[in-house]
Amino acid sequence: MSEQLSKGLEGVLVAESSLSDIDGDAGQLIYRGYDIEDLAREASYEEVLHLLWYGELPTEQQLAEFSDSMAADRAVSGGVLDTLADLAEADETPMAALRTGVSLLSAAEPEPDKDVEDADATRREGRRIVAKIPTILAAYDRLRRGEEPIEPREDLSYAGNFLYMLTGEEPGGVAEETFDMALILHADHGLNASTFTAMVIASTQADLYSAVTGGIGALSGPLHGGANQDVMEVLQEVDGSSKDPLQWVKDRIDAGGRIPGWGHRVYNVKDPRAKILQSKLADLSEETGESKWLDYTSTIEEYLTGEMELPAKGIAPNVDYYSGSVYYNLGIPIDMYTPIFAMSRSGGWVAHVLEYWQDNRLIRPRGRYVGPKPRPFVPVDER
Amino acid sequence: MSEQLSKGLEGVLVAESSLSDIDGDAGQLIYRGYDIEDLAREASYEEVLHLLWYGELPTEQQLAEFSDSMAADRAVSGGVLDTLADLAEADETPMAALRTGVSLLSAAEPEPDKDVEDADATRREGRRIVAKIPTILAAYDRLRRGEEPIEPREDLSYAGNFLYMLTGEEPGGVAEETFDMALILHADHGLNASTFTAMVIASTQADLYSAVTGGIGALSGPLHGGANQDVMEVLQEVDGSSKDPLQWVKDRIDAGGRIPGWGHRVYNVKDPRAKILQSKLADLSEETGESKWLDYTSTIEEYLTGEMELPAKGIAPNVDYYSGSVYYNLGIPIDMYTPIFAMSRSGGWVAHVLEYWQDNRLIRPRGRYVGPKPRPFVPVDER
Repeated sequence: MSEQLSKGLEGVLVAESSLSDIDGDAGQLIYRGYDIEDLAREASYEEVLHLLWYGELPTEQQLAEFSDSMAADRAVSGGVLDTLADLAEADETPMAALRTGVSLLSAAEPEPDKDVEDADATRREGRRIVAKIPTILAAYDRLRRGEEPIEPREDLSYAGNFLYMLTGEEPGGVAEETFDMALILHADHGLNASTFTAMVIASTQADLYSAVTGGIGALSGPLHGGANQDVMEVLQEVDGSSKDPLQWVKDRIDAGGRIPGWGHRVYNVKDPRAKILQSKLADLSEETGESKWLDYTSTIEEYLTGEMELPAKGIAPNVDYYSGSVYYNLGIPIDMYTPIFAMSRSGGWVAHVLEYWQDNRLIRPRGRYVGPKPRPFVPVDER
Repeated sequence: MSEQLSKGLEGVLVAESSLSDIDGDAGQLIYRGYDIEDLAREASYEEVLHLLWYGELPTEQQLAEFSDSMAADRAVSGGVLDTLADLAEADETPMAALRTGVSLLSAAEPEPDKDVEDADATRREGRRIVAKIPTILAAYDRLRRGEEPIEPREDLSYAGNFLYMLTGEEPGGVAEETFDMALILHADHGLNASTFTAMVIASTQADLYSAVTGGIGALSGPLHGGANQDVMEVLQEVDGSSKDPLQWVKDRIDAGGRIPGWGHRVYNVKDPRAKILQSKLADLSEETGESKWLDYTSTIEEYLTGEMELPAKGIAPNVDYYSGSVYYNLGIPIDMYTPIFAMSRSGGWVAHVLEYWQDNRLIRPRGRYVGPKPRPFVPVDER
């Protein structure tokens, strides 16, 4: 046993995985060998889920079967909606509502006693959870706005159905395509904190509901999933300021302020997901005629990368820097950005649990005890 | 960076901690320097929580203040009880009901935006959660039996109030003392999987509700928290069998069967917590005149330790081997044993998060990618 302390487990190899690989120096991300850019531009989220869960991209028939069975699993019970209504009444955050909503789902699980080594059974359970997350989130957003939840439709894509349930209208092609792309980009990313949480929980052979509930909890932390919301809040601050964006960012940096959406523990150069979303933001801006968010992000990026002599570790834009503006263009409420991240990443959590269960080992690290040495007990009346 | 794979993180030092230390060779467990046996026999669970959360055993005045403020936090809202009633209707497991119940509590958190470095605020949030877990569990057990939940009483101890809410009657002194002892024995145990789950979640600066919800999920796994229930089920099998216990265990072992409650990754000798519970079980058996559970466990232990030339790693009884019989003697339903473990360990989860947040670092390990090399994308109609 090594006596070296691995704070944050940085650099510690905890598992082998065939799911995703990150080349932090080249700025490349692959899922099972496929470049994230190819997948984002040419595949659907359902295809990517199939790739992650079954190992290969589906044939047309496999895709139809997989998509249909997942679409058939979208509805949640009235009891879940009632609890979400109570939470909306109490003004709960959408991430906490999602955490509770997913935890509630296990009560309706039709195969509660399956074997963790039965990968098909795990995939079915995973399908049920991932299928229902958009339903929970869209219902919650409507309930807190005083509107009735909209029932899922089986004839729409995963991305399209979510936007439909959120707004009550079938999304346009560009919106659906953009949202689908964002889901693909966020589906997996190595052993990040939420994925690792799901794995630690599942390593006890707890069920997927526990693993995904835990993953949502981890993703709710500001150091993990919250940065895309922070970016949008900063951009709104720029928008509301009387300064031009260049002056705003100069002043912010001079005052020692931080710009969210910059830097990543794994990437030394620009996050490839940021590049894809940046170009999608340009398309959206052209289509809608509203280019200010693109202008702000580009100006800030040019300033930060030019003045600070990038690329250097930790000061290149990451995926969160662009996803916020993209979601904003799609009309999605800002505090739904992290929940959408969870919606997408739930597919990755399930994939990692599936993979880990094929050769499961309980995850139990050590702590180094630095507390008081053995000492005699003193009864309370003598203290 | 080491390229060595640390499967299960066995032996990997992930944090320094002053909370508990396990000497696996000597069979000793201490909380902040105090031997677990002294604490179990001479302190209350509230005193132990104070020790874990504040660093020292409380004075009489500190203990009164701490206990009173925690007792005042016991009630849960009608909305929480309504959701628990729905779950009882759906025959949800008590662990899943507890996971959902704790997740629900965050909606009523009075200080949702506190700083993770504010230890007093964290302790207040922790106190609210730990105070309410017995209320959730007792209510759930009653609801599924078709009985009305009983409101918590502030004038009873943590242990006594739980037994009161469960049964509707004030517990006798021995029952309360025994249950309190069991809570103390399970309060902390290094970086086990559920505690580590809570730490990983909290390392993102997610709130304690997320951390504790995740811990409950991890503890629900059969490789972690379920063994005390398994032991009791085995003892019931012995009881229902026509064989005498010695013959039963011989046949079981000869058939390659496993006896739950034996072996632990950390202890090479008998778990000190098992010793304490064993002697408490003897006291209870004497008091109630019902000694069969003690007889069965003792017979099986003598057989296993005698025939297999112990002590050797992994084949000494652990805490779960005796806790089941103790709870059974207290009249607690078998599927509440793991939830009771969660009730106790929630205090440890809060303590570890408190400690970790004093020098927080996001927990993010690495995976070794062993999947396909980069490969070209093939559109779905060409697959």
